[in-house]
Amino acid sequence: MYFHVQRLINEIEQDEPDPAAANALQEGLGGQFGEMRTMMQYLFQSINFRGAAAKPYRDLIQGVGTEEISHVELIGTTISRLLDGSPAYQGKKSDPIDKPGSAGAIPLNIALDQGNIHHYLVGAQGALPVDSVGNPWSGSYVYNSGNLVLDLLYNLMLESTGRLQKCRMYEMTANKTARSTISYLIVRDQAHENAFAKALETLGINWKNTLPIPKTNAQKFPEVKRLLDLGLQSKQYSFDLTGQSEAGKIFQGMSPSKDGTKLDAGEQAPEGVPSTISPERFEEFSPGADKDLIALIEATAAMEMADIEATFGALNAPA
Amino acid sequence: MYFHVQRLINEIEQDEPDPAAANALQEGLGGQFGEMRTMMQYLFQSINFRGAAAKPYRDLIQGVGTEEISHVELIGTTISRLLDGSPAYQGKKSDPIDKPGSAGAIPLNIALDQGNIHHYLVGAQGALPVDSVGNPWSGSYVYNSGNLVLDLLYNLMLESTGRLQKCRMYEMTANKTARSTISYLIVRDQAHENAFAKALETLGINWKNTLPIPKTNAQKFPEVKRLLDLGLQSKQYSFDLTGQSEAGKIFQGMSPSKDGTKLDAGEQAPEGVPSTISPERFEEFSPGADKDLIALIEATAAMEMADIEATFGALNAPA
Amino acid sequence: MYFHVQRLINEIEQDEPDPAAANALQEGLGGQFGEMRTMMQYLFQSINFRGAAAKPYRDLIQGVGTEEISHVELIGTTISRLLDGSPAYQGKKSDPIDKPGSAGAIPLNIALDQGNIHHYLVGAQGALPVDSVGNPWSGSYVYNSGNLVLDLLYNLMLESTGRLQKCRMYEMTANKTARSTISYLIVRDQAHENAFAKALETLGINWKNTLPIPKTNAQKFPEVKRLLDLGLQSKQYSFDLTGQSEAGKIFQGMSPSKDGTKLDAGEQAPEGVPSTISPERFEEFSPGADKDLIALIEATAAMEMADIEATFGALNAPA
Amino acid sequence: MYFHVQRLINEIEQDEPDPAAANALQEGLGGQFGEMRTMMQYLFQSINFRGAAAKPYRDLIQGVGTEEISHVELIGTTISRLLDGSPAYQGKKSDPIDKPGSAGAIPLNIALDQGNIHHYLVGAQGALPVDSVGNPWSGSYVYNSGNLVLDLLYNLMLESTGRLQKCRMYEMTANKTARSTISYLIVRDQAHENAFAKALETLGINWKNTLPIPKTNAQKFPEVKRLLDLGLQSKQYSFDLTGQSEAGKIFQGMSPSKDGTKLDAGEQAPEGVPSTISPERFEEFSPGADKDLIALIEATAAMEMADIEATFGALNAPA
Amino acid sequence: MYFHVQRLINEIEQDEPDPAAANALQEGLGGQFGEMRTMMQYLFQSINFRGAAAKPYRDLIQGVGTEEISHVELIGTTISRLLDGSPAYQGKKSDPIDKPGSAGAIPLNIALDQGNIHHYLVGAQGALPVDSVGNPWSGSYVYNSGNLVLDLLYNLMLESTGRLQKCRMYEMTANKTARSTISYLIVRDQAHENAFAKALETLGINWKNTLPIPKTNAQKFPEVKRLLDLGLQSKQYSFDLTGQSEAGKIFQGMSPSKDGTKLDAGEQAPEGVPSTISPERFEEFSPGADKDLIALIEATAAMEMADIEATFGALNAPA
Amino acid sequence: MYFHVQRLINEIEQDEPDPAAANALQEGLGGQFGEMRTMMQYLFQSINFRGAAAKPYRDLIQGVGTEEISHVELIGTTISRLLDGSPAYQGKKSDPIDKPGSAGAIPLNIALDQGNIHHYLVGAQGALPVDSVGNPWSGSYVYNSGNLVLDLLYNLMLESTGRLQKCRMYEMTANKTARSTISYLIVRDQAHENAFAKALETLGINWKNTLPIPKTNAQKFPEVKRLLDLGLQSKQYSFDLTGQSEAGKIFQGMSPSKDGTKLDAGEQAPEGVPSTISPERFEEFSPGADKDLIALIEATAAMEMADIEATFGALNAPA
Repeated sequence: MYFHVQRLINEIEQDEPDPAAANALQEGLGGQFGEMRTMMQYLFQSINFRGAAAKPYRDLIQGVGTEEISHVELIGTTISRLLDGSPAYQGKKSDPIDKPGSAGAIPLNIALDQGNIHHYLVGAQGALPVDSVGNPWSGSYVYNSGNLVLDLLYNLMLESTGRLQKCRMYEMTANKTARSTISYLIVRDQAHENAFAKALETLGINWKNTLPIPKTNAQKFPEVKRLLDLGLQSKQYSFDLTGQSEAGKIFQGMSPSKDGTKLDAGEQAPEGVPSTISPERFEEFSPGADKDLIALIEATAAMEMADIEATFGALNAPA
Repeated sequence: MYFHVQRLINEIEQDEPDPAAANALQEGLGGQFGEMRTMMQYLFQSINFRGAAAKPYRDLIQGVGTEEISHVELIGTTISRLLDGSPAYQGKKSDPIDKPGSAGAIPLNIALDQGNIHHYLVGAQGALPVDSVGNPWSGSYVYNSGNLVLDLLYNLMLESTGRLQKCRMYEMTANKTARSTISYLIVRDQAHENAFAKALETLGINWKNTLPIPKTNAQKFPEVKRLLDLGLQSKQYSFDLTGQSEAGKIFQGMSPSKDGTKLDAGEQAPEGVPSTISPERFEEFSPGADKDLIALIEATAAMEMADIEATFGALNAPA
Repeated sequence: MYFHVQRLINEIEQDEPDPAAANALQEGLGGQFGEMRTMMQYLFQSINFRGAAAKPYRDLIQGVGTEEISHVELIGTTISRLLDGSPAYQGKKSDPIDKPGSAGAIPLNIALDQGNIHHYLVGAQGALPVDSVGNPWSGSYVYNSGNLVLDLLYNLMLESTGRLQKCRMYEMTANKTARSTISYLIVRDQAHENAFAKALETLGINWKNTLPIPKTNAQKFPEVKRLLDLGLQSKQYSFDLTGQSEAGKIFQGMSPSKDGTKLDAGEQAPEGVPSTISPERFEEFSPGADKDLIALIEATAAMEMADIEATFGALNAPA
Repeated sequence: MYFHVQRLINEIEQDEPDPAAANALQEGLGGQFGEMRTMMQYLFQSINFRGAAAKPYRDLIQGVGTEEISHVELIGTTISRLLDGSPAYQGKKSDPIDKPGSAGAIPLNIALDQGNIHHYLVGAQGALPVDSVGNPWSGSYVYNSGNLVLDLLYNLMLESTGRLQKCRMYEMTANKTARSTISYLIVRDQAHENAFAKALETLGINWKNTLPIPKTNAQKFPEVKRLLDLGLQSKQYSFDLTGQSEAGKIFQGMSPSKDGTKLDAGEQAPEGVPSTISPERFEEFSPGADKDLIALIEATAAMEMADIEATFGALNAPA
Repeated sequence: MYFHVQRLINEIEQDEPDPAAANALQEGLGGQFGEMRTMMQYLFQSINFRGAAAKPYRDLIQGVGTEEISHVELIGTTISRLLDGSPAYQGKKSDPIDKPGSAGAIPLNIALDQGNIHHYLVGAQGALPVDSVGNPWSGSYVYNSGNLVLDLLYNLMLESTGRLQKCRMYEMTANKTARSTISYLIVRDQAHENAFAKALETLGINWKNTLPIPKTNAQKFPEVKRLLDLGLQSKQYSFDLTGQSEAGKIFQGMSPSKDGTKLDAGEQAPEGVPSTISPERFEEFSPGADKDLIALIEATAAMEMADIEATFGALNAPA
Repeated sequence: MYFHVQRLINEIEQDEPDPAAANALQEGLGGQFGEMRTMMQYLFQSINFRGAAAKPYRDLIQGVGTEEISHVELIGTTISRLLDGSPAYQGKKSDPIDKPGSAGAIPLNIALDQGNIHHYLVGAQGALPVDSVGNPWSGSYVYNSGNLVLDLLYNLMLESTGRLQKCRMYEMTANKTARSTISYLIVRDQAHENAFAKALETLGINWKNTLPIPKTNAQKFPEVKRLLDLGLQSKQYSFDLTGQSEAGKIFQGMSPSKDGTKLDAGEQAPEGVPSTISPERFEEFSPGADKDLIALIEATAAMEMADIEATFGALNAPA
């Protein structure tokens, strides 16, 4: 069973909107080696896991999988912010549903030549479950052979490829909103690499100097370096509410990346930052709730209460 | 940010393995109107939501979306149990990896004529992210127009269709493992119908006697009736850890299904039941951890500890 | 612009329901060489056609394309009848929505082991836009290179392959409902072969004894022979309401199939037979309109009339 | 059975070619909420419809579905005109097949950086059955649950989403060719919204001020306002040749959009405008029929006639 | 550049036709971890390879990739033989195109309930580029990150998964035709595992007792044991015609599978067995060349020769 | 069984990198009418071929199919060269893994607005198995009806469409690297047209002046003219190592293209040119083998040798 808090797992920096960068980040969300895939792959591996004696491996996969849901939330929100209010048009909020397109204006013409037109036409300047060339995410991406060694080996390769792609993505844009999330995920992908590499070590493989894969020297990226200095590549959270996770039996000892750090599975979760709600975008006919609507909601609630009192009596109001 | 507990949201009854029923349930997991879709659709709608004044709607969608992750876990586990150890072959556990196929035996021949052959060939008798005819789940299923009324209308139609399909599924098998989960989801789909219908009521629609859609009289199904009598169709949990959800501002008052119940958003989550780990299936070469492996894991952990003590000193062991 | 009459282009014989035959016919509806594809391919070729001097070719393609819409209607209806009320369960109509599944019955269990489970689970015993292994129809099937010779060559090959597949389908089932439509389409596919082969003859190709492709000797199939004796393989209808089609400039002279017949483009359309509406299937929760609903419809209509009279005055009722 | 006239359902204004706008319009043709989808969805719902007592609903769906075929024709032709002879190159017609590419020219280089390269490479500057990011149309889009209320609810949501997307499309381009068709379809989508909303009203739902969905105030778009003033949002044609449609039993009374108009199902079809054939494009090797070809066609026809006279005698010429 | 000899890489044993086993083998041909995928993946990795100093790795991948083309040929031919002349119908060859379906016979009715109906309806009892549930092979399967370590790691995992699936396939059928090819591919997959594992060893990884992955103890399968005893799991052929391959610099030394064998890259290719052509299947309208056709071919050849002599003179005949 | 030589089938000219042209060429590699499709189609048709008496047709298809593998190699390599080191960034090779992205540089920003972003993000500036709008190649493209006439007719249409698309591609770019391969493939496609047209002639069709299809007058393209003058459109190689191919029984006599040439099947293969390996691209983290790696490889080889000597004795070293 899963729970939620209204916090993002990491902070997203403010910068200008940038639809082309938003599109590149879609690879990290809905691509074959993106966060939707890691999330679903680990969820299925946890559900179908076999062998009670191997519970620490299940718990490790389950913990990483739960983190990936928060990564989907983080990168999706980042894409949404990169798209919101394109440079070509900053919608006026004073006169909501009347202005867009009035007198034949073309506030959305940016959609024709930057990034993915679906961001403006199908969604309302928000993230989509597709990759950076518009292919919808597919269930065929999920790998779960049921053989523990193979599943771990695939997971290691998956995290390494995800990190490789994010390092390439980093080299495509200097937008700070994009980079704050890209850099965080580069470091967390390395933590997950460490997790699966360590699990394979317990099964007999000696990685010597192979890790991390690939050798990107990502510490050359200043935003990444800051997070590496904090040791985030060597921590794995449990995201487990009742302390039953045994992932720490595996995620311990020296890092297989040979960077001189110890692996640490001691924390339940990072602190995170409050999540906020995006503003209305009237040119997308995406108004959320306007003044009339709020009044209506309040009136409805009042009526409901009266209704219930009439039916059940005043003392019987909902808890 | 998301958290997990090692409990299933509802109990799964014990019964015989039944690969054909397992395959029918795949529609409820990976089909166009299954739990992976509701989960992803509500996650994306929450991430891309616009309008701070409409927060109660966002929180309602977020809460239902979080529940759907647990539904994916529930129905995936149910499929896994329906597949595990098909009637045609109950693997011996005493002599793990030597027996399957030895002397040319065909322990998996059931795969050729029941349900989905991928359950035995690609997975190890476990759930897959596909529908009941084997189509992989697709990101193109997710609907998130960014227009609140349209998104709510779609969500209502989605839950109603999900319930319709599960009622048809109920009529396809008498297997108790299958039915315990089908019935639970029929009732929870109705709760979600109520949630989105109520939200649309606050925006001005009067459903009169239209709900629930479809009129299946599902109370004729004994397993469903038991849950309706408990009022599960009129409860919505928040799954919110810090009490910030405002979904209760919408999910209140009389049920739009006109069954005389009050909507109740007061509970954080159901209690659930402990989740367990499936046994090994050696004919799938899915051994989990055998005796040798466990010894290896313990030895590795001991070595790691020595290693760390050597590097950092005994007092500096991981928390 | 398109019009419709409530008639099927050919009669469908009565026989027992047969879900497996229904599934085979899906190839002829939603398969890569089925009627949805010919319909869409010719529609696109007509829309994108170039060269006013080549109007007779456009009109020929347009006429065949319009016929294909009626073929989609015909084969879809045939599949629907083959599925309706499977042999394993003939739903009682006296007590509509209460009986199905009551006391835990499994009226739809046939769905688990015959044909395509989606026929019962996603649709309500009706045709689907998929092929015989469940692949959804895809726009990538449509061929329209814009080069007239290539488009005609592809169309000839397409009709020939469609006829080949239907001849194989004929050999898979003796069900009369299935065969009446299969046989009709075998003969009409040959007429369309003749149409495109003749068009290529006008562009310089001499087919000698190559046609029809393939040499199936389909006249060995008794139902097909009856239609060949009527000369249906040598007629092409215009389906054109105002007599502007010039397709007859091409579809004339001796048949390229060298069967001694003359091609005849003189008729606007076949007579067809009245189309009927399928009965309700309550086990699918597909009730159509029951007694309550009909009363409601009538009451609504009466209210509307009163409403309009109040607004516009009695004399101003809708035409 | 279906018929055709050589007229477009609405006039397309003349303007410059515009490949990027053409690509945006592809969403309205081959997108998940475009005209191919509405057409196919209503065709399948009509074919599989259950319950003779509900015939007016079937006829309503059938009538809208027939109109959608003409919409496919309209928007496809519009895309074709937007692509024809790109701004970068207006092919000479005097010297047809010799000039393109001669001496190494690059008349099609525009294809590399505007819209969809397939418009120039796979098609010959014509419409394709794909959406605006190039995904082929898929049969998995079609919704036909067989439950009347759900099918109507989905249809309402489908038309509303189609209208939403077209309003966004309107805001992307000022090209008059594009806008004349976009605006017409915005208004017709609203008519179809009214049709399905009204049908749901007869089944008990009161929409109050919810319609039209979304609240785009599309009357701010001048081209749309002109059509609304003509009342096109409140008319539904039958496209039925023999007057058997009972759709008028539903499509009557006050508009559910509460715009003070009466619904009117009295007309068979709009008048339409003559359709024309596009010019040759030699740089695409899409010549249609040149002088030689026309001579060949005429010669072939003469020979055929002689051939037939020789076989059947002069009096036996084709009707 | 590639060349071909008319020999199969391994012998296929004779046994009864078995359409269900044929369908299982499709996973090994067109599945996500089948031979088409390995072939294409290694071809692309060879084409896109970077770094002249790493030529031995390129040559290793190229050599395995060339072998995979022959594996596609082998498993495709095996499927074709398993389908040819199903048990339910052995077509008479004496009276070719007249008998099938004559008098309404149903020689292909087996297609409705065994394996993949497309084997009989779309193909003529031959192999298809699809997996065992009918999904077409997809280019999205191919992995080629361009990072050498990641590509090798993926290749190792790919071969191991292929071997896992083939071991499961072995346990599904006792048909000798199926098993002779399954067993051969199990052993060759292990050879390829060894190749990629050894390449990773040179890059620093120590596999200890991890290989082969998975630990299937496939030597319990008698047909596999025979091939292991021949040492086929420790040989890698170059398939290189001019001796430029440097793969032997890597594929040498002790096997990483720790079975006590030495790796041997000394042979160019196995000897193979002559390939034969399948018989005609008239019920599929797949006649190949009949007596008339052969006469026609010979006559055409004679005419051509006369034609050429007339044009070029007798001495100028083609070489 | 297949073999390989380390030579490309034709020379690729040197020119500037050009990612947009590279993307257009993807249609010729992974598109519906590209080289992967012809290769796979002919491979499957060869494998599933029926009728020993028709061996010359099988051998013709097999020979063309083998050539197509080399075409995949040629066009893939061409795309790779067009992408390598984009104009915007020429990576320094002196300081491999440290420079890219250092201090926050964006060496890959070209990926955001030219061609296919996957060329830089998923691959390392290399060819992908997709078409020019990013759709992955699909097994559903392969046509193999099993009817010889239909298969040949489809093959003719396929080659003609491939040639049409390449002629359009030629008109999109003046880049010499792109054009040298496009032109070669235009001419070879015509040779394959001739092959299948001739095969259909032997079966009775007279093409008169229809061929080549389409009438592109490609000799106006200077690079194409040079190859036509060499007669490459009238040669077909066997690629058969042991001289068993009987394709020459069909590919002989006057060319069906009526260009006055004789068809010539006398050569085994063209000479080809040596293939080279691409340089490292450090900004893609695609280093191949650096100095450390090479030392490691050599050390490993030495150790292996010692290891083997210890185990087997010095005389027993690998052959």
